[in-house]
Amino acid sequence: MSASGFATLPQPPYYAVIFSSRRSDRDEPGYAAMAQRMAELVAAQPGFLGAESTRGADGFGITVAYFDSEDAIRGWRQNAEHAAARAQGRSDWYEHFEVRVARVERAYGWDCDGAATGE
Amino acid sequence: MSASGFATLPQPPYYAVIFSSRRSDRDEPGYAAMAQRMAELVAAQPGFLGAESTRGADGFGITVAYFDSEDAIRGWRQNAEHAAARAQGRSDWYEHFEVRVARVERAYGWDCDGAATGE
Repeated sequence: MSASGFATLPQPPYYAVIFSSRRSDRDEPGYAAMAQRMAELVAAQPGFLGAESTRGADGFGITVAYFDSEDAIRGWRQNAEHAAARAQGRSDWYEHFEVRVARVERAYGWDCDGAATGE
Repeated sequence: MSASGFATLPQPPYYAVIFSSRRSDRDEPGYAAMAQRMAELVAAQPGFLGAESTRGADGFGITVAYFDSEDAIRGWRQNAEHAAARAQGRSDWYEHFEVRVARVERAYGWDCDGAATGE
């Protein structure tokens, strides 16, 4: 994730894992430490391209992680520390979550400084 | 969008428009009114399936809108009121945004009450 919050990605196609979640109101320090650790860990995952993430004051959040292939997603899913975090997510940190895995077909962007990218 | 923030979607495949943005610090009332109006308008778009949206206190937000086909996305893009909102978004409401259009291949969910859905 860049300082601005936007991921810098190659031209499509690539893959997106869209993770939407509602936090429980439990264990904010543990959650924050896990989120930081997962961000470090996924950055070292072969095929990881970038991620964007935000959460509102109501506890509803969306993280989108981008990978170059289904194989890379599978590799991240099989990471043991990530699997342990997912298990603790179910027991402690989340009330509900949804995961959608998608193939990005096209992309474009816009910046107030005048730079448009993509199609 | 349901009260909980989660979209209720059919089984994949379907399409996702992932819109990530950084707000300018201008015109919060106008932005809020537009966001509300766009949520109403897209709900009437043939092929619209649901949406999830959140924004953090830092002004970085992610909205994911789901559609049943590329045709439905095209129809929404051609909606005149939506086009006007996009134009004003560039002039007033956003510093930067990125759009990625993706085909959702699989999906699953989890709830603390014990219900898991999908694969």
